Amino acid sequence: MATLALASWATNLTYTDLSPSVVDAAVKSVYNWAGCAIGGYDQDAPRIAQASTQAFFGGPPTSSILGANGSISDAYADAQLAALINGIASHVDDYDDTHLETIIHPAGPVASALLAVAEWQQPVTGQDFLTAFVAGVEAECKLGLSVSPEHYDVGWHITSTTGSVGAAVAVGKLLGLNTTQMQHAIGVAATQVVGMQEFFGSMTKSFHVGRAAQGGMLAALLARNGYTSSLQALEAKYGWLHVVSTRENATAYFDQLGQAWEIEKNTFKPFPCGIVMHPTIDAATQLHNASIEQGKKMSDVKNINLQVNSEVLVLTGKTAPTTGLEGKFSIYHAAAVGFLYGEATPSQFTDDVVNNATVVSLRKKVNVTTDDEKFRTDQATVTVEFEDGSTIENHIEHAIGSLENPLTEADLKKKFVDQVSKQIGEVRAEKAYAAFTGIGNLTNVGALRMLY
Amino acid sequence: MATLALASWATNLTYTDLSPSVVDAAVKSVYNWAGCAIGGYDQDAPRIAQASTQAFFGGPPTSSILGANGSISDAYADAQLAALINGIASHVDDYDDTHLETIIHPAGPVASALLAVAEWQQPVTGQDFLTAFVAGVEAECKLGLSVSPEHYDVGWHITSTTGSVGAAVAVGKLLGLNTTQMQHAIGVAATQVVGMQEFFGSMTKSFHVGRAAQGGMLAALLARNGYTSSLQALEAKYGWLHVVSTRENATAYFDQLGQAWEIEKNTFKPFPCGIVMHPTIDAATQLHNASIEQGKKMSDVKNINLQVNSEVLVLTGKTAPTTGLEGKFSIYHAAAVGFLYGEATPSQFTDDVVNNATVVSLRKKVNVTTDDEKFRTDQATVTVEFEDGSTIENHIEHAIGSLENPLTEADLKKKFVDQVSKQIGEVRAEKAYAAFTGIGNLTNVGALRMLY
Repeated sequence: MATLALASWATNLTYTDLSPSVVDAAVKSVYNWAGCAIGGYDQDAPRIAQASTQAFFGGPPTSSILGANGSISDAYADAQLAALINGIASHVDDYDDTHLETIIHPAGPVASALLAVAEWQQPVTGQDFLTAFVAGVEAECKLGLSVSPEHYDVGWHITSTTGSVGAAVAVGKLLGLNTTQMQHAIGVAATQVVGMQEFFGSMTKSFHVGRAAQGGMLAALLARNGYTSSLQALEAKYGWLHVVSTRENATAYFDQLGQAWEIEKNTFKPFPCGIVMHPTIDAATQLHNASIEQGKKMSDVKNINLQVNSEVLVLTGKTAPTTGLEGKFSIYHAAAVGFLYGEATPSQFTDDVVNNATVVSLRKKVNVTTDDEKFRTDQATVTVEFEDGSTIENHIEHAIGSLENPLTEADLKKKFVDQVSKQIGEVRAEKAYAAFTGIGNLTNVGALRMLY
Repeated sequence: MATLALASWATNLTYTDLSPSVVDAAVKSVYNWAGCAIGGYDQDAPRIAQASTQAFFGGPPTSSILGANGSISDAYADAQLAALINGIASHVDDYDDTHLETIIHPAGPVASALLAVAEWQQPVTGQDFLTAFVAGVEAECKLGLSVSPEHYDVGWHITSTTGSVGAAVAVGKLLGLNTTQMQHAIGVAATQVVGMQEFFGSMTKSFHVGRAAQGGMLAALLARNGYTSSLQALEAKYGWLHVVSTRENATAYFDQLGQAWEIEKNTFKPFPCGIVMHPTIDAATQLHNASIEQGKKMSDVKNINLQVNSEVLVLTGKTAPTTGLEGKFSIYHAAAVGFLYGEATPSQFTDDVVNNATVVSLRKKVNVTTDDEKFRTDQATVTVEFEDGSTIENHIEHAIGSLENPLTEADLKKKFVDQVSKQIGEVRAEKAYAAFTGIGNLTNVGALRMLY
């Protein structure tokens, strides 16, 4: 009875059920998402999507397109368009959040739908917003746990395949659906399965997140008006869990709703790219400094040898990326720029940098060996071998940004302000940081956009 | 190279490539779709969907909501909303068309997207419209053949899972995408997999068709503006064919594009319900007359015994339907109303009739045995046993509406006019019939709506 269990738990959830640690994790997830959505808006994917669709998503402009830096009227759209564009923008840099057990990036689909609806259906309090957000994140992560790793191994992009249900639960919660309506909303969302891994490295990867936000929101709105789906959408023989996974007995995780909180396990990316490359980047950026201290030049490098988990090549094995988006899925590019620049920010994943001659030359010197016995996905050893025969080496036991080695609040603030400043300047970025970190105290989340 | 093969074939297709038989099949498919879209608009599913979404799909009202019977301004919407509502309305009665080898109902996703875009991007000639329509139908049916029956057996609703790609190819063709853009459009469409069988018997079944039309249209529009996906979206390891099917070597059917025309194998439903019930209904409606000739009363019936293929119970095994939509997936209801009324039109699949005491009583007397050796899915034997021990029996070798026993043009006209008259009256229905059957001669399909 997974569908009923989820619907019943979500409709009954109250803010008082959320521990301070859950609230803290939720607020971090929301402002990390907002920073990504603002910073990512400068990419082609959200811009093209907006240009292509604003002819029809032309309803009343109630909801923010977060990164749009024009007059207030330019920066608002109807709730469906805002959800699509914020969803794309928040994911296009691959800089968002990660629930590591499932590799779900939870905030994107949920927050993109939820903020758009909260602005449309004013006033929504900050507490109600966070409660609905947590409901949506728990929904998608429990779904993900129920089908992991088989679902991902088949080729699905789990963030969006579970994200539409997460968005439906969050929006349904905000709209006050009853349990039966919530079951129907889960059904309409579950039948829209968006996202395959073949599209990693293209604009379609981030489209998945925006489309999941739209589809989930639509599901909740339809269910509120009496649209019917199924009361057993998840567990039925021809329902979601069976159709998109080979996993048997997949529903046990729903018994743990409200006991084990997945939002507390959310992590935040220090580097804007596929997360399995993070330990390598962590190691390579540290070696950049070591190499400078030893007076080495880039032209002295003979090889950069990586030892990593085999998932690294499965997910990020592109040897010759030609665009910034492809660079985000190239372990060769990641190791090269990490070592060359000593950092890996959005600036290291542009089309220009991916095609820079020095970067291309260094990328060709990167060799990868995999060993699943010795290396988990958050571990890596990087060895740089110089022409003179000397080497420097660095082993990462838990990559920065992992649960064991998380970003600090100062790191998260720097990440937010760096991204947001690019779009709206530093003064407004600081105000936006204050606004989003204080979201839980607002009496009307719809007024948040006026605070920066 | 399935993606390239499909994109290249579709972009190069011209009206002169279509034989008279292909054109004839396309025109029939289009007007049968239009009749269903107009007739089905009176149901809850399209009405609720329209009420739930018109707040955001509020762009310029360029495109017809076919069944809306108000002033012209009420009956138009933006292209995305029109595609959604016409897609839902055309499928909600389960009265549309069927490509029997794949059980795809091809016209719904393709025509719903295509007409909306043709009206938006005036002028589009009738010949260009039909060429694009055929491209879309061939795309979805070749995809379906490539993964049948494994894809359907998993639980997917194949009409919509292939339909988004069909809609993308059709709209992309109309918009004049080049081959590379078409490949990207196929990718954005393929990653949106909508539709599972768990939702049969609910409003979500027809939502699948409308959402596939929207998603495919969106894919073509994004690709036109430079949105990137993958050039190998269908055949790649983590692309469509692999992710949604267990079938190996799935791409051979794409070599036959332009040689074997799937549109010529499209059939049209004589009864508004799951197609595997059609042989039983065909038999039962004939037995209604035989029973009257013998002076029998309904109260004399002891049992109605069906011998059918096992797929009948898999897909339409609902023993106690409570809504009209559920009745469309109940072989028990189908046999009962077929025998009781001597016909099975939309009037026999309303909530009222499904809950009618006589119908319920007769339904409980229906017994089903399956035998896949003796019965294909278009075959059935129905035996009515009376209280006095006498029986009447009827065997159907090829159900009415099958390829071997198709509806005549007169049948198709009656079906169209009956459905359309309900919504807009008989005079306008006759005009609409003339307009849609003459679609190939129009210099501007966008003006079609003014002809009735």
